[in-house]
Amino acid sequence: MNIPSKLVEEAVNELSKFPGIGKKSALRMVLHLLKHDTETSVKLGNAIVNMRKQILFCTQCGNVSDKDICGICSSVNRDRDKICVVEDLRDIMAIESTGQFTGLYHVLGGVLSPIEGIGPSDLNIDKLLERIKTEETKELIMALSPTVEGDSTMFYLTKKLQDSPVKITTISRGIAIGGSLEYADEITLGRSILNRIGLEV
Amino acid sequence: MNIPSKLVEEAVNELSKFPGIGKKSALRMVLHLLKHDTETSVKLGNAIVNMRKQILFCTQCGNVSDKDICGICSSVNRDRDKICVVEDLRDIMAIESTGQFTGLYHVLGGVLSPIEGIGPSDLNIDKLLERIKTEETKELIMALSPTVEGDSTMFYLTKKLQDSPVKITTISRGIAIGGSLEYADEITLGRSILNRIGLEV
Repeated sequence: MNIPSKLVEEAVNELSKFPGIGKKSALRMVLHLLKHDTETSVKLGNAIVNMRKQILFCTQCGNVSDKDICGICSSVNRDRDKICVVEDLRDIMAIESTGQFTGLYHVLGGVLSPIEGIGPSDLNIDKLLERIKTEETKELIMALSPTVEGDSTMFYLTKKLQDSPVKITTISRGIAIGGSLEYADEITLGRSILNRIGLEV
Repeated sequence: MNIPSKLVEEAVNELSKFPGIGKKSALRMVLHLLKHDTETSVKLGNAIVNMRKQILFCTQCGNVSDKDICGICSSVNRDRDKICVVEDLRDIMAIESTGQFTGLYHVLGGVLSPIEGIGPSDLNIDKLLERIKTEETKELIMALSPTVEGDSTMFYLTKKLQDSPVKITTISRGIAIGGSLEYADEITLGRSILNRIGLEV
């Protein structure tokens, strides 16, 4: 793409580093900024830089936070014997919105992925092993994406913790509520038959 | 969406002001920035702010430019008797990449749209009328989007210029090269029959 202005080109290059944003979308974003006043761009630029410079990561769970210890870890209303292992902030927000979990979280910051060069040392795993030893954890709930990478990470952690007395569970996989059997994929449907649940009357 | 960090929330709010970027996509962008070092965010933030603060608009054609007069307007190799009227920078880039046009451009900065509250005074129209009077323009080529708004803008300009000796043309609309008649919409196909072109042997 041959952009006639160096300034625009630089902004397009930086914006197109976002995942899922190509050069065309980035140019569209730049033209949006040019249509609005300087204040809009300054606010956006400052919000990005301030966020990245001032953000802290909770020293306990590894979640992004404005303080040293995040709101969930410092709350007195949470069950401290359950830790839910998630990939990032979005998963915490999704689980919190269900209102079904009152324990603590542990943010790995990703999943193991040999293709992307992400190994165990790149994830927040050591801190998790330490927490299990020092905290009153009784149950570790794996809430990772049902992908090959998510499953590998889960099995890696389970192996690492096989001598620990902590109970390890995973969120259930199966047919989504409101979903139809007809349109479910074979693997999910197969898994939902294998992991069938006893009905109590 | 209930984001636990004020800093992240602010960045998400600013990023979701982009067209086509919702809160979820904005959060994904923020998490991308958090996975990379501070330098990445600072470069992005600065590129945006510098671009908006330093960018100039060509005093002749209204295109974005790093100088007072853009590269095309200041070039001695362009035909100065043809002006192609476009909506924004992207259209110039698209037309330039064809290599078929060697004249000058005029950037309107949008099209007339009563729904979005864009009237003639919001567009770079007065400057165009002035250019036609003072420059050696012989032909005005309308290259606006084939939408209701684009067509209205074209008719508005044609009406404004009806007493001017300048010849007004528009880019042709019809079946795209490589397109199949079967899948063309009725309006395009209808237009391509009405505006049929004489074959010269």
